[in-house]
Amino acid sequence: MDRRSFLKTTALGGSAAAATTLAAPAYAQGKRTLTMVTSWGRGLAGVFDAAQHAADTINAMSDGQLTVDIKAAGELVGAFEVFDAVTAGQADMYHAADYYFVSQHPGYAYFTAVPFGMTAQELVNWYYHGEGMGLHDELGEIFGLKSFIAGNTGAQAGGWFSKEINGPEDFQGLKFRMPGLGGQALGKMGASVQNLPGSEVYQALASGAIDGTEWIGPWADEKAGFQEITKFYYTAGFHEPGAALTLATNREVFDSLSPAHQKIIETAAAATHQWNLAQFLNNNGAALQRLQAGGVKTLEFPDSVWDAMGAAAKETMDGYMDDELFAKIRASVEESMRASSGWLVKSEGTYRAQRDRVMG
Amino acid sequence: MDRRSFLKTTALGGSAAAATTLAAPAYAQGKRTLTMVTSWGRGLAGVFDAAQHAADTINAMSDGQLTVDIKAAGELVGAFEVFDAVTAGQADMYHAADYYFVSQHPGYAYFTAVPFGMTAQELVNWYYHGEGMGLHDELGEIFGLKSFIAGNTGAQAGGWFSKEINGPEDFQGLKFRMPGLGGQALGKMGASVQNLPGSEVYQALASGAIDGTEWIGPWADEKAGFQEITKFYYTAGFHEPGAALTLATNREVFDSLSPAHQKIIETAAAATHQWNLAQFLNNNGAALQRLQAGGVKTLEFPDSVWDAMGAAAKETMDGYMDDELFAKIRASVEESMRASSGWLVKSEGTYRAQRDRVMG
Repeated sequence: MDRRSFLKTTALGGSAAAATTLAAPAYAQGKRTLTMVTSWGRGLAGVFDAAQHAADTINAMSDGQLTVDIKAAGELVGAFEVFDAVTAGQADMYHAADYYFVSQHPGYAYFTAVPFGMTAQELVNWYYHGEGMGLHDELGEIFGLKSFIAGNTGAQAGGWFSKEINGPEDFQGLKFRMPGLGGQALGKMGASVQNLPGSEVYQALASGAIDGTEWIGPWADEKAGFQEITKFYYTAGFHEPGAALTLATNREVFDSLSPAHQKIIETAAAATHQWNLAQFLNNNGAALQRLQAGGVKTLEFPDSVWDAMGAAAKETMDGYMDDELFAKIRASVEESMRASSGWLVKSEGTYRAQRDRVMG
Repeated sequence: MDRRSFLKTTALGGSAAAATTLAAPAYAQGKRTLTMVTSWGRGLAGVFDAAQHAADTINAMSDGQLTVDIKAAGELVGAFEVFDAVTAGQADMYHAADYYFVSQHPGYAYFTAVPFGMTAQELVNWYYHGEGMGLHDELGEIFGLKSFIAGNTGAQAGGWFSKEINGPEDFQGLKFRMPGLGGQALGKMGASVQNLPGSEVYQALASGAIDGTEWIGPWADEKAGFQEITKFYYTAGFHEPGAALTLATNREVFDSLSPAHQKIIETAAAATHQWNLAQFLNNNGAALQRLQAGGVKTLEFPDSVWDAMGAAAKETMDGYMDDELFAKIRASVEESMRASSGWLVKSEGTYRAQRDRVMG
């Protein structure tokens, strides 16, 4: 199917091709609807909100010239089919977590999160002022996408378990939901890892199809209702220290937009990244208190588990090093992470320790 | 002078008043120039960049309908006169740090940074999803401003000193540059505090008019050249744990813009906040290494100094509690900070400690 058949223009304006014959402006005129497919169930806390916020911001700034039409998972294509739908031109843009698409290219993991990778702040440092956005573009050139990060969950919780985890051997045979390279690392620790869309996790956990799951953090997890099924909640995890979401537009569609509309999409995505990260982080504290009041037991993995996670993460990443672009992205991320982290520890880290000590 | 005389419209469109007689759109048409006065010397690293980034983003997204004309400090009004210039209608918008305007209202301190206050992430949580933006609006209603945070330096360095600081008594009589409530707290510790615009600090330090200064952090401080004068650099400070910058528009001017242009300004400011914070944090690590290689000695204040800073900060804030709006803002900030911080420690804090331990 020709992706151009999905470019919608109203009777008020011409098509992109026709408009190029005019002197100025040289881009498609008239109102235009952009179909956004997402990996999220409609209204799914935080993640669908990010897609909605990006869409609303694009619509408002373009003064109605652009209308983003959001499709929840399953409404046009399935949660994990959005990437292929947009590269094929079946939809104009997707909102998803790019690590759902590691089978398309393992480098996409770095644009959501990798185990023992960047925090959200380290990611934005790299994305906007290091090589991040440029490397996102390099991946996009392979698949015909123009991608921008457009949401972030912050550091994700370790997840929900049916029993306490006392050592790495407790992951042996554990049926656990975790996407991306984190999930692959957990597999190396002996877990039976599944990747399920957010909307399907509750049912899988309730039915016993999985023994445990990570999803996001207290606020989104509480909304998903996992506390109704199990009470063991690990609040820190190794797998997604600052998971970004992505708004990706079909490259031909993006190129057919005016520079102003391109900048509107880029800026809406950036503002959504910050807005959404703040949404998760602002809501998590109160949600955690409610979960604890409801009987949820919060726990931390013992050091032996973190050590095993570290070894499994390294082995997972090392397994992709024959891919040149993966290796290039990994090197860029790890160098930037060290530089960002060094200063953050010396400034904000020392400050926070002193604030806790002095102010209690 | 009537602020409306500063609304500039081209011959292509009518004035705001004339446009309201048309059916739709009901707002000023045609190209419009908005004069932005700033507290920054032209090209001043990071802070002028933020003003420029906000302006460029507004210009690009509005497709040339809005043109922001940036004035450096002194080009139209002085660095600290921008607030009064915009409230009086002498300019359309300012880009500055709102804590320069604590004499207009002490509550403005909270929209840059207060001693022992919020980190940058805690601030955005409060600003976009807590009561922050609404309280910024409450202050704006007093002065006829529509303000958005639009930049952030991250946690600032403690600053440059001519000698090592061994105890709180070393601040006695010290001539030091520090704005806002942090500067007032330092005054309570016995320092002789001055507030100088960024462009004037180097000369003051070089001439001995001040004994020491804080400015921002390694990258901006290196560009300012303080390492040429003194070598004692405290990398963590109590005074600005995540200092935001503000883009404030004259309220009548803002209200005369179309909803799309209003959203463009709001979104450009938000995206600039994230972009600018990442700029500082991405550059600080490498700059610190260069400073150290050049002979700068990095230090941390002893606990006795942090304790004295804590007491002085509390005394400073307590001194404004008879102002109802200040008290309301302070209570809102402190409650939000506790909630944000609690989750961040349990998730990202634990993760970072384990990452350091496992990965080295």
